[in-house]
Amino acid sequence: MKLFDEQSFLHQLSIDCVIFGYKDAELKVLISRIKMKRSFWALPGGFIKHEESIDQAAKRILEERTGLKDIYLEQYRVFGEPNRINHEVFEGLTSLRDEWAEQIMLDEASLQWLAKRFVSIGYYALVDINKMHPRKSELDDSVDWYNVKQLPALIMDHNEMVTQALETLRLNLDRKLIAFNLLPDTFTMKEVQELYEAIYDKPFARNNFQKKILDLNVLERLEKKFTGAANKAPYLYRFQQ
Amino acid sequence: MKLFDEQSFLHQLSIDCVIFGYKDAELKVLISRIKMKRSFWALPGGFIKHEESIDQAAKRILEERTGLKDIYLEQYRVFGEPNRINHEVFEGLTSLRDEWAEQIMLDEASLQWLAKRFVSIGYYALVDINKMHPRKSELDDSVDWYNVKQLPALIMDHNEMVTQALETLRLNLDRKLIAFNLLPDTFTMKEVQELYEAIYDKPFARNNFQKKILDLNVLERLEKKFTGAANKAPYLYRFQQ
Repeated sequence: MKLFDEQSFLHQLSIDCVIFGYKDAELKVLISRIKMKRSFWALPGGFIKHEESIDQAAKRILEERTGLKDIYLEQYRVFGEPNRINHEVFEGLTSLRDEWAEQIMLDEASLQWLAKRFVSIGYYALVDINKMHPRKSELDDSVDWYNVKQLPALIMDHNEMVTQALETLRLNLDRKLIAFNLLPDTFTMKEVQELYEAIYDKPFARNNFQKKILDLNVLERLEKKFTGAANKAPYLYRFQQ
Repeated sequence: MKLFDEQSFLHQLSIDCVIFGYKDAELKVLISRIKMKRSFWALPGGFIKHEESIDQAAKRILEERTGLKDIYLEQYRVFGEPNRINHEVFEGLTSLRDEWAEQIMLDEASLQWLAKRFVSIGYYALVDINKMHPRKSELDDSVDWYNVKQLPALIMDHNEMVTQALETLRLNLDRKLIAFNLLPDTFTMKEVQELYEAIYDKPFARNNFQKKILDLNVLERLEKKFTGAANKAPYLYRFQQ
């Protein structure tokens, strides 16, 4: 069996996903390490089946990598320079072909198909990092969360893809109230502020920030449970739109 | 010679352009009427050459249709449903093939190429309607400006493309200060207000609107020329960023 059947996909068109997660006061991005003679780092991505819409393809790719179905996800930009050719991975695959011939099942037709220019549709996704277990694709050596400020050098224009996804996230944050997708079901106001500070990479004044968030009228404050130390515990909130 | 050489373009990927213009207090969109046994209305569009970036392709297509080089233009969304197949135009072309065989030069290979699913990258553009003279493509019967509120039924999902382009324009208007691309070089404050009212399809209060626009600090007020009636003429402004 071949690793993948290139005839099932639209040619020269791909999807790349910037999957954002949030933990330990850091905004993180999910990155694959591709196993070759030397390693390459890349955004999770894939191709579009002939019978799929582009949104369905993006959802399928995300589910394959995260195990999650109902993820917040949005296309944000197409990357279409004429030199978008994955030379590194293509050369890596070619050099490994003989050695791996039986494991990876990439025949000449698949390699030729992968060696062309690809226009890529960028999607970004927001996940609750605690709910998911990243999954490797057949070509991955590992898949891990990286601080968005300390990414490794990624293949092709993938670093630029992350930069533009982050810019879009910042622009959309207030209008679409999507940041809460990055938090667990319940959270403190301090956690919301730390999340916003991680996304914008700058501090906010506590009182103004709290007022601004509460004025959005999308948070429900939970009743404190009665415990001896209850008065000192911060309120928990839940997103409700 | 063939009408076009499908081998020069990326397969199954197209660009469609929502070109906005403004005149007589109406926001307008440039629409082609395609000549067939019956007529079809469509957004101006085209394909991407192998050696072009997607932005270069969009600029080339816009220049072909408007004669203008430095147009404000922005990709805003990809349309990628699996049933995006241009049945109407394909069937129209097929039925006309014999009759037109010599004029339109569409051979079987071109027709088969056009008959597939196309993922289309939507761009919107803002032009000063007085500076341009719309140009027909080889397949067009006419190309004209239509009020965005009174568009004909367009092929495939082109009406939806206009709706989403307008939504993006509204969202970007304040942040990117792009509305002035739709006005001539000099304009009155009343004209700016009428433009915004046409784009948002709602009235604005004059004093608030004027203050908001002046507070942007991007307009230069021109000196009034000395004439007998000068005191009654409104100030003219020019965009300066």
